[in-house]
Amino acid sequence: MPMGEFDLIERFFKRPRQEAVVGIGDDCAVWAPRAGHQLVFSADMLVEGRHFLSTVDPTRLGHKSLAVNLSDLAACGATPKAFLLSLSLPRVDETWLSGFSQGLFALAKEHGCELIGGDTTQGPLNIAITVMGEVPAGEAVMRSGAQVGDDVYVSGNLGDARLALEAFRGTVRLPEAVFDLARLRMEVPTPRIALGQALRGVAHAMADVSDGLVGDLGHLLKASAVGAEIDWPLAQPLLQSLQQWACPNDLAMTCVLSGGDDYELVFCAPPSAAERVQMAAQSSQTAVTKIGRITPAPAATSSGQTLVLRDSHGQIVPTQFRSFDHFA
Amino acid sequence: MPMGEFDLIERFFKRPRQEAVVGIGDDCAVWAPRAGHQLVFSADMLVEGRHFLSTVDPTRLGHKSLAVNLSDLAACGATPKAFLLSLSLPRVDETWLSGFSQGLFALAKEHGCELIGGDTTQGPLNIAITVMGEVPAGEAVMRSGAQVGDDVYVSGNLGDARLALEAFRGTVRLPEAVFDLARLRMEVPTPRIALGQALRGVAHAMADVSDGLVGDLGHLLKASAVGAEIDWPLAQPLLQSLQQWACPNDLAMTCVLSGGDDYELVFCAPPSAAERVQMAAQSSQTAVTKIGRITPAPAATSSGQTLVLRDSHGQIVPTQFRSFDHFA
Repeated sequence: MPMGEFDLIERFFKRPRQEAVVGIGDDCAVWAPRAGHQLVFSADMLVEGRHFLSTVDPTRLGHKSLAVNLSDLAACGATPKAFLLSLSLPRVDETWLSGFSQGLFALAKEHGCELIGGDTTQGPLNIAITVMGEVPAGEAVMRSGAQVGDDVYVSGNLGDARLALEAFRGTVRLPEAVFDLARLRMEVPTPRIALGQALRGVAHAMADVSDGLVGDLGHLLKASAVGAEIDWPLAQPLLQSLQQWACPNDLAMTCVLSGGDDYELVFCAPPSAAERVQMAAQSSQTAVTKIGRITPAPAATSSGQTLVLRDSHGQIVPTQFRSFDHFA
Repeated sequence: MPMGEFDLIERFFKRPRQEAVVGIGDDCAVWAPRAGHQLVFSADMLVEGRHFLSTVDPTRLGHKSLAVNLSDLAACGATPKAFLLSLSLPRVDETWLSGFSQGLFALAKEHGCELIGGDTTQGPLNIAITVMGEVPAGEAVMRSGAQVGDDVYVSGNLGDARLALEAFRGTVRLPEAVFDLARLRMEVPTPRIALGQALRGVAHAMADVSDGLVGDLGHLLKASAVGAEIDWPLAQPLLQSLQQWACPNDLAMTCVLSGGDDYELVFCAPPSAAERVQMAAQSSQTAVTKIGRITPAPAATSSGQTLVLRDSHGQIVPTQFRSFDHFA
């Protein structure tokens, strides 16, 4: 007799209840919010062949499925609390489910994020997660607070995930060690939860870099009604693979500026907060790099561009980078 | 230039913010819970060809996508507050999107349920919604509270959606008027929100009937560690189509008992609360039918069955009904 929907949930996805008043297994989960706090929500959907290759290790995929959601919480400075998982599966593959749930719950446990509900059904592989986090009331960091004169920072590294994708596509050949590192960045992203929390009250505005720096910083600039200048000599070294491999400059630009799948934080803070930014980086053990500054809105600048890239001589680099768009 | 992901959201899914502190458009939505209340959550995923036919009217599909989620809130006695929508689309079809969003938002507006976030991507058609509702602290109605001697009630009608499915499958021919009515039940279910709320403090236990009465009542019985007897002469007339068409008894049993897609409420309340149940039905303008009673757990009964069906002479009807299982 094949494994049914409820056996599947029982075997692979049910865990002891933690903070939830009612967890998995009823029509609804019940959650008692803490006084003085607000809840933040985000949802991401991952589709086979689009967000991940069909050959990806299921443990890594389980990790990534939750990681991309936690990254949104990080961008608001929130503490992860709970998530709901809806899963469409072509068939009940116990090996796959075992790996997927291991990767998922290892990351969930690391961040104290509890699975409180969801749905399973048969269909093309699709992983939809809604995640909930908590912030002290009024302290969520949004995209809309950037101010002219703020410094622009990025956490960790940018572009290696895209470099791995290009290698998978066959457009570039990488030395094995470089490919392995880049592939790890693509398949096992690290949500910057601790840094995001440490930046509450420090960063004026923050977003996570999931569709590429140009696109995601672009949304932040639009929401804040400002522009920005990025210094390419400061941004280029964010491509970690450069430490071991001489990546052509054009490819480095594509990867760093419009790569996607980075799950780093881009944020803005005033120069007066520079020391507090460094303290947040240290306390969260997360590298932080200043890559530019916030300028007046494009209508007020000579270039007319929202986002300007400058080379080592301060000259404007002509760019036509676009963010990743699933329907473009 | 094709419509991009952000244009699509802007055009079809962005609505003015209502109760949310931060709505659609940032990395996360922000929600300020009301003091003295708990939040309840549920998630459902609808896949083309499995949960709906590819030819279904998109307006009806938009309605149904939210309705099945609201039905879970109803089963807890919750007031709908907000939802997140993740949507995988094969292509940007503006006619489809326009219809879908109209059906979705018409129902959302009716229940004051605000879209606060989500995701859109390209892929096989898949609709994943997470819904959030609110209950006064400690008042959520769960599946686990049924007590021996409770009456078992069902709201509205049962089985007509399954009858429509059988007609679509060609296993039965229905008069046109009967088919139209049954099809409406399948494609435009009514979540019993007002009844669910009115039954807080009245019903001992409640669940929504989405996978068929036998299955969903079965989950309630298991969670409550009790059994139940259903009187077929009381349950059979719940098939609304019977009013116009002489449905064979076997087919009526299949439809009413293990039909699925009903989105009615099944609930248990003590005989002493019978009048309050009727008042809840009246105040919510929702029909309620008593169909049986809660018995001791099966180990303590002579039949050894959790759920017993009795005919008009009180004799046990042998049944082998199963609930709908996506992987069975």
